[in-house]
Amino acid sequence: MNKQLLFVKRPDGEADASTWSLKTNPIPEIKDGEVLVQQHYISLDPAMRGWMNEGKSYIEPMEIGSVMRAGSVGQVIEAKNHPHFKKGDYVSGYAGVQQYIATEGKGYFKVDPNLVPLPTYIGTLGMPGMTAYFGITEVGKIKEGDVVLVSGAAGAVGSIVGQVAKIKGSRVVGIAGGPEKCKYVVDELGFDACIDYKNENVKERLKQECPKGLDVYFDNVGGEILDIALGRLRMHARIVICGAISQYNNKEGMKGPSNYLSLLVNRATMQGMVVFDYADRYAEGAKILGEWMAQGKIKSREDIYEGIENFPETYNRLFTGDKMGKLVLKVIEE
Amino acid sequence: MNKQLLFVKRPDGEADASTWSLKTNPIPEIKDGEVLVQQHYISLDPAMRGWMNEGKSYIEPMEIGSVMRAGSVGQVIEAKNHPHFKKGDYVSGYAGVQQYIATEGKGYFKVDPNLVPLPTYIGTLGMPGMTAYFGITEVGKIKEGDVVLVSGAAGAVGSIVGQVAKIKGSRVVGIAGGPEKCKYVVDELGFDACIDYKNENVKERLKQECPKGLDVYFDNVGGEILDIALGRLRMHARIVICGAISQYNNKEGMKGPSNYLSLLVNRATMQGMVVFDYADRYAEGAKILGEWMAQGKIKSREDIYEGIENFPETYNRLFTGDKMGKLVLKVIEE
Repeated sequence: MNKQLLFVKRPDGEADASTWSLKTNPIPEIKDGEVLVQQHYISLDPAMRGWMNEGKSYIEPMEIGSVMRAGSVGQVIEAKNHPHFKKGDYVSGYAGVQQYIATEGKGYFKVDPNLVPLPTYIGTLGMPGMTAYFGITEVGKIKEGDVVLVSGAAGAVGSIVGQVAKIKGSRVVGIAGGPEKCKYVVDELGFDACIDYKNENVKERLKQECPKGLDVYFDNVGGEILDIALGRLRMHARIVICGAISQYNNKEGMKGPSNYLSLLVNRATMQGMVVFDYADRYAEGAKILGEWMAQGKIKSREDIYEGIENFPETYNRLFTGDKMGKLVLKVIEE
Repeated sequence: MNKQLLFVKRPDGEADASTWSLKTNPIPEIKDGEVLVQQHYISLDPAMRGWMNEGKSYIEPMEIGSVMRAGSVGQVIEAKNHPHFKKGDYVSGYAGVQQYIATEGKGYFKVDPNLVPLPTYIGTLGMPGMTAYFGITEVGKIKEGDVVLVSGAAGAVGSIVGQVAKIKGSRVVGIAGGPEKCKYVVDELGFDACIDYKNENVKERLKQECPKGLDVYFDNVGGEILDIALGRLRMHARIVICGAISQYNNKEGMKGPSNYLSLLVNRATMQGMVVFDYADRYAEGAKILGEWMAQGKIKSREDIYEGIENFPETYNRLFTGDKMGKLVLKVIEE
């Protein structure tokens, strides 16, 4: 049977158990030109909260009653005259929160579990890694000697942003929640410093760590921290707007950055990015990140939970911060 | 005698008569290498409000007790071995709100009252014109067919932004306060449309005028209108942050643009600008704008008040909007 998590109610504020409904259906039959994929791992991302809202965004809002949208990785267990994929292939795509999918494979790509573990293909070598790599290089335009600040520094995107910036010769300061994450960011990932926003005065500590200010701020969180970063820009600084996790569940509406005139004072730029724009360069990004991983220059960490029925509580960890690295749900039952 | 307006108190919120004090001092004597300039016209600009605040900005804050900072234009009435200027020359510089100045002439440039009237040199051929020209071409990166929105459309900067954008082949919509200004913007300046923010629903009207959205928003006002513009961006849109006149007197602190995640959705850019960065290209900008004026393609309008003692109430017109075009104060007494 195929367990599927359906999106059944648009949340107002935080999503909760009533947002989804678990259904069990027969495993779908494939048509000519399709493959049947048994899913192993589902990617959990803060962007999911945005997909639940109505209204214009960078992607169509999810429809009520549809399978919860998610990136995923699994194995082809049956194929009927498919032009690219055969039985036994491992593939990654947006198959959603379900155990099986019958698909023509549009947007799917083959992955090799002998090179890195499967969950890495929905993490560092998947969308979060591509977001980090193209965001910091193409939008952040980092160069040697830059001072770079990254929020969500222990997360799937932020952890890679900082490591790429280090490789490119920047001084990198992270922001993360709690001493354990900050220790990981500095000791394991090699950031120059990490500010614990839950226990430290971010503004003061940032002043100490970056006395001459910031050249790049890679923003995953929005809210107060975006304002603090705006207050410490150097001339011609770049702010990469990748996300705003602190605001996604805000029922009172988004908090705008009241320090935005710092863009004028410092002739700075704030630019939004969506990873899909780099789709034709994913292979290039994955190759570079993969090589750096093989050389030990980039560390990738996944935090893996089990059981499709545990999706709601696992999803919640994105917003409580109770996870370390890329959040993944194993949905295959062994 | 030399009437001088001194800046004597930092305002909290709006500046008022107590912000300045009028003093009468002897006309200064010049040293070797200096000129004595008799000032004719003083430029009044929204940026003045920012100069009164303490704290880091794009220019040093004014010191208490100093002559009120202002751009100006006047005539050299005495020169002592000055390398560039001689008696009779007309010059423009930042001489402040006073009738005479003894100066080495740093930052001053010669102007020709036979080509355009003197006040135009502190308007369309001065800082406001340069701000408009370099802002919309270099930061706004306008190209043929773009849809451009300009706030403060009847003002010194906005009026030139829109006319330059029209020359470059854009569709241009202005925002201004009141039917008289809107009529001027459309009938005289040739904008395609102008929205009266005091009497119309800006959001609805903007939707009608720009059904496919905006490629460029040139922002002089900030606040609600910036948020409305953010809500109508097209892909890869550019927002030029030139000023935020709606917020300068806000005692509750700046309102940040709560719609800023539209930058992400639309892969758009918000960039701040300060005209001083283009100082080495002013001659180029003034030549181009001057030619367009001579060809009748650009109209320049100054709203001229008289008497240095009327500075406070004239300044106030910047914020009430009770003026049309570039606001100028004539300080020479005839």
